[in-house]
Formats: sequence, C-alpha cells, structure tokens
Amino acid sequence: MKRPTIVVLGAGYGGLSTVVNLQKSLGTDVADIVLINKNEYHYESTWLHEAAAGTMSPESVRYDIKSVINGEKVKFIQAEVTGIDVKEKVVTTDVGTHTYDYLVISLGFEGETFGIPGLDKYALSMANVKAARQIREHIEYQFATWSLEEEKDDSRLTLIVGGAGFTGIEFLGELGNRVPELCKEYDVPAEKVRVLCVEAAPMVLPGFDPELVDYAVRQLKAKGIEFSIGTPVVEATPEGVNIKKGEDEFEFIKARTVVWAAGVRGNRLIEESGIENMRARVKVDKDLRAPGHSDVFIVGDCALMINEEVNRPYPPTAQIAMQQGDMCANNIVALLKGEPTSVFTPDLKGSICSLGDDDAIGVAFGKKMTGKKASFMKKMVDNRALFLIGGVGLTLKKGKFNLLK
Amino acid sequence: MKRPTIVVLGAGYGGLSTVVNLQKSLGTDVADIVLINKNEYHYESTWLHEAAAGTMSPESVRYDIKSVINGEKVKFIQAEVTGIDVKEKVVTTDVGTHTYDYLVISLGFEGETFGIPGLDKYALSMANVKAARQIREHIEYQFATWSLEEEKDDSRLTLIVGGAGFTGIEFLGELGNRVPELCKEYDVPAEKVRVLCVEAAPMVLPGFDPELVDYAVRQLKAKGIEFSIGTPVVEATPEGVNIKKGEDEFEFIKARTVVWAAGVRGNRLIEESGIENMRARVKVDKDLRAPGHSDVFIVGDCALMINEEVNRPYPPTAQIAMQQGDMCANNIVALLKGEPTSVFTPDLKGSICSLGDDDAIGVAFGKKMTGKKASFMKKMVDNRALFLIGGVGLTLKKGKFNLLK
Repeated sequence: MKRPTIVVLGAGYGGLSTVVNLQKSLGTDVADIVLINKNEYHYESTWLHEAAAGTMSPESVRYDIKSVINGEKVKFIQAEVTGIDVKEKVVTTDVGTHTYDYLVISLGFEGETFGIPGLDKYALSMANVKAARQIREHIEYQFATWSLEEEKDDSRLTLIVGGAGFTGIEFLGELGNRVPELCKEYDVPAEKVRVLCVEAAPMVLPGFDPELVDYAVRQLKAKGIEFSIGTPVVEATPEGVNIKKGEDEFEFIKARTVVWAAGVRGNRLIEESGIENMRARVKVDKDLRAPGHSDVFIVGDCALMINEEVNRPYPPTAQIAMQQGDMCANNIVALLKGEPTSVFTPDLKGSICSLGDDDAIGVAFGKKMTGKKASFMKKMVDNRALFLIGGVGLTLKKGKFNLLK
Repeated sequence: MKRPTIVVLGAGYGGLSTVVNLQKSLGTDVADIVLINKNEYHYESTWLHEAAAGTMSPESVRYDIKSVINGEKVKFIQAEVTGIDVKEKVVTTDVGTHTYDYLVISLGFEGETFGIPGLDKYALSMANVKAARQIREHIEYQFATWSLEEEKDDSRLTLIVGGAGFTGIEFLGELGNRVPELCKEYDVPAEKVRVLCVEAAPMVLPGFDPELVDYAVRQLKAKGIEFSIGTPVVEATPEGVNIKKGEDEFEFIKARTVVWAAGVRGNRLIEESGIENMRARVKVDKDLRAPGHSDVFIVGDCALMINEEVNRPYPPTAQIAMQQGDMCANNIVALLKGEPTSVFTPDLKGSICSLGDDDAIGVAFGKKMTGKKASFMKKMVDNRALFLIGGVGLTLKKGKFNLLK
C-alpha cells in the first residue's frame, strides 16, 4: 500500500508548527510529508513592524526553514502555490504539481484595502519581509533626500500610518523610537517630522482594555505621534491621502510615506479553490477541517473561528496559529491511525502589544501590565514562538535577549 | 591698535589644517581667528566613496569641528558663504557678513559635469556627506524595490559609475565588496547585478604606474565589474545613460543608478569673487597667495599648482591640502610679524588608491605595493590625516583600526 502524502502549504507559524509536530509524531515510513513555501526562509510576521521601522534588521526576523525541519521526514519544496484543486486533490505551483491525501492550508494573510482608491498603488504594506524591508528603505531614502535637496519637500518627512489596530500601533511604537535616530543620522530637525495615525473606527486597539489603550495613546503622543480617529482614508495619491473628517469635510494630507496597516484577509487562493469562505477565510470545523472537505485542514490566518464568549472571531495571531498547527498534526496522526479527531480550543495566554523596544501594554496570566514589565513579557512571548518551532538552538540564535531594556 | 582678523572659509582638510596650525602658533591676544563652515562637522572627503557604497556609516566619516578647535582662540561660525568681495575685504554668508584682514579660501571642490546634458539632474555625486548618504540609500532602495516588485525592472540592479579616476576606482572597489552583501540582504541573484564603469579617456587611473593599474583593473573585473574605456557619456536620462562607442555608434544603457565621479572643479564663489581663476581654481603664488591679492590665501582643491617635474597640476588631494594649511598658517604668522613668507613645496609621500577594505594599489616611500600591504598603508594614511588635525584623541575615536583585514 502506498504511503499517504501530507502536503502543507506555507511555512508561517501555523504551517511550520504543523510540520515540526508531524515530524515529532510520525516515523519516516508512515507518511510522505511535503512542505511548500515561496521562500526558503520563515519570517516572524509578528516582528515585521520592527523591520519596517528599521529598529531591527530584516535578517533578524527570518531563519532558514531547513534549520528546523528534519530532511529525512519532510521534503521541502521552494515554490509559489498558484492553485488548489480540492476535487482532484492537486496543488499547482510555479514549478510543478503535487497530489495529496491530506492537505494543510496555512498560507497566511494578505492586506485588505477595502477598495479604497489608490491604496493598492501608493501605500506601502508590511505584508512580508520584503515589503517591510522596502518600507525601511523608503523612509530612509526620503530622509536622505530631504537632507540633500536644495528646495526641501517637507512631505518627505510626513509618515501616515493607516490603522490603529495591533499592527498599526506596534509600528507606531517602533517609529516613535526610530524617528529621533533618523533625525540624528540624516541631520533632520525633529520638529520637521510628522507621524500621523489615521483610523476609520472610533477607537484605538479595539478589544483591548480601555485603561491600557489610554496608556498606549498617551505614551505614543509623548513621542510626538498624532492621532486622527474616526476619520476614514478615502483616497491615496502619489502626494498623500485624503481623509474624511466629517459629513462633507475632507482634509488632504501631503505625505511621501503612507503605510497601510488596517485590515487583513485570508489568501486569495482560497477564494479560487471552491472551499466556502468569507474574505478568503474559512469558518473551520471544530477539528480544523474545512467544512465538507474531510482531507483539508486550515490553520493560521486563513482559519476563521468564533470566540463564543464574546461572539467575535478570534484574532489572527501567531499564538493561535501555532496551537492550531499542533492540533492539526495531532488530528492528521489520528486520521492515519483510524482514530477520531480532537476539538481545537485556543488556550489564550494573553495578548501584549509592544510600543517600541522598551514599552508595551497587555494582559498575561490574567494580569494587566504596562511599561518595562509588559515589554519583558512581550520578548518572552517572541522567544517562546521560536522555542516551540525550533527548540533551544533557534531561540538562542534568533531570540530577543535585550530583555530589560 | 585693533587686532587683525583672520577669516578661514571652509573646514575641509586645508581649512582645518590652517586653523589648528594658527591656534598652535598664535596667542589669544594676537589675532581674531574666525572659521566659517556650512556644517558643524568636518567630513573626510577622501572616505566619501565608502559612505556612498554603504561599507562605512556616514556618521563615521565626520566629526564635530568644535572637537578640534580651541574655542578661546578660534570663533566658529556655522554659516554658508554666499559671496567673497576681495576689494571691500568682506565675506557674506546666509547669516551675516564678516570683514577680514587676512582671508583663507579653502572651500573645496565641486563636481564638474562638463555640460553633458542630464548629468546634473539624473546622476548622483559624492560631493559631500549628505550626497554620499543619499547614494547609499538610493542603491539600497533600488535593491529592496526590485526584490519586492512583481514585474522586475532589472535596470534597478544596474549601477553605472562615470569616471575611472581616483574617486571612481575607489568607489568601484567598495561596490565590489558591497554588492554581494546587498544581494544577500535583499535576496537578489548576483548574476542580475551589473556594475559598469564608463570612462571617456583611453585609460584607467591616469598618472598611476601601468603595472599597478593593470592589477587594479584585474582585481575589479574579478569582482564582476565591467569597464567601458574611451567611451564618453553623452547624455543622462531618468532611464540611464547614452554612451558614445565610436564615430557614429552609440549605446543606451538602462540604469536606475548613475554615479558621476569624473572631474572636479573649484568652488563657484571664486569665479564670482574677481580673483583670476580657471574652472574656479586659482593658480596661486609660491607662498599660496592669490596673485595680486596679498591678503588672500587659497589652499586645498581651489588652489592650482603646477608640478614642474611633469608639467601638470598637482592633483587635489588631502595630503597636499593639509600641507598647504600648515604653510598658510606659517605665512600668515610671518606677515603678522612683518617677516617674509615662505615658499610652499609639496612633500609627496606617495599615493594609494583603495580597492575596497582589503585591497589597494599605490606607491609609498618610493615603493610600489598592492593588496593587503597597500591597504594597510592606506589606512595608516587615513589615520595620519586625523592625527595631524585632531591628535591622538581624534585618531583613536575616528581612525581605521581594522588594519589587517
């Protein structure tokens, strides 16, 4: 009898967690495990705001996939997935096709611009390590050019961040620390620089404790960051963004740098796959399978699960993605053995939003915390993600050990 | 009787050398010494190719002027000189005017584009620390953008260096080391990158020993750098440069990065000052004074002196500029005492052209040298410049001590 083939798409938190747990549980002769990923590296998508701000090198936010997988048990293929056919059980990539017996879709998020004109073209996004790297270079290039040019274009020093959710706020926190460094490095007077957060919703960090949110906004404002809340971006142009301030009131803000950090969606391949979805996310069954497709698992940002306590979806976090990967591996092993699958329940250990390298807000172990304590916890969380995927070796190599800054 | 006022324009090698030698020789009550410079820092113009390539941080190539002058003897004014009136003995700046009894013009070089259309607008130059910094950012931005964009524009990875003289070759040497790093950092396949040196003259490094030049070209070619010699650039556009390959033969090379490193001239203020000049350089008297202006000294790149041994001008080097500053201070002191001035004779200690951090060619102590030995000597020369201006303290702070790389 032919060994079953398990194909895992994507080496983000969910995909890698699935693979490392499968290779722990399965012997070499039980199944063929194939991992397909666009790049030869995994990147910490929860750290991209640091690479984008320039407070961390892009190299530090990624590591070789081969350093965490067992080559005798897992075949790694560097390829871009171009299609998923769940009827024929075939995955197509830019370098070949692969059939599967079990499929794990862990393709991560894509940015969502909600059809706002110009954002696709003129705003930058932190969608992946290359995009984050370009944001850093874009900002530095603007500072360098302003410093050199005879007729100063001050809009080079205006940075607009669209979105006051988790990603937006973490990015602003890094910018708050980075801008003074940039001013020093490029001989730019600090008062010339403007960092503005524009948010359509009437609040910052929805879902977070209001007291913590107040702390965060106060801290960011103290670093000179401005907020425009309840004011949607209605258009982006090469010169800046147009913001809706009231019923018939608009304001155009000139800015050479616009970073869009509002809203994510699942991967577009899911929309083309025939699997039922909402904005490319699949409302998965309790054992993480796609409804009606008993051989397809969805983990990570493409999986939609409702938190019944608050009747809202769980946010797309690394923490949940890794737990899902663990459970997905467990359930595939069960299916291989003819045993019943288990129900996935997120074990929420808390949530911490960083405000730069030295500050954060969050809840962990049921306790609210701010400042250095929260920042310490955040780094521990980051290190834990490395540990869960790559053990002590990877943690020591890529971890954050400026713990008490 | 009023104390005489000595005004020194520019804090490059020549100007700073003049000032530090004046402050050594003169007591606080003998003369008012005023140093006027655009920036509050001095930069090592001979290191700018390293900042431009990104092999050295822009911060490392500059230091505070105040760290090397004695505030009790020298008044430093941060201002941009806008005019020199040798009849009225007045210097105007963007923040005020200054009269002088003795004037030292040490305003350094400007780039010379020989009227080639488009170069002014579309080529980058290493004219100062801000311009060098922008070249670095420009190159990195192109690499980051290429890596991210869907439709790859390979001309982002083509770098054209105009000029195979000292500056062009030293810059190419740094690029040869930097490009592999950039490829790694930005996930760019090395074979996609093209670095091309275009030179109008029929030779590389005119004035250098042919055997050394052969070595340099061989080493740079081994790093993948191409040469197009005897082929003038006739136009630059936003897309690249047009090169004249033969009588009626032209080739357009697409390149997003064009760095112009061919040809320097003196400062344009000299042309407007009424002092006789050639391309803003003044053929100075043997004691470094401007002909017909007994109270005006010219040192550094704006001073033109003929080396009678070869019947060609001495090249504008830091070594000669510093020696001129020393002699200029000596001659001003002589005039203040009513003594005769001395004749300036360059003491040529050799010339070393770096080919990156680990290689060089040159002549020192009458000996030809290449490779690590020449590279070591080059760093010693750089450190000596720091020592002559700022003593041991500055050398230790800003010197190059990776001497045996």
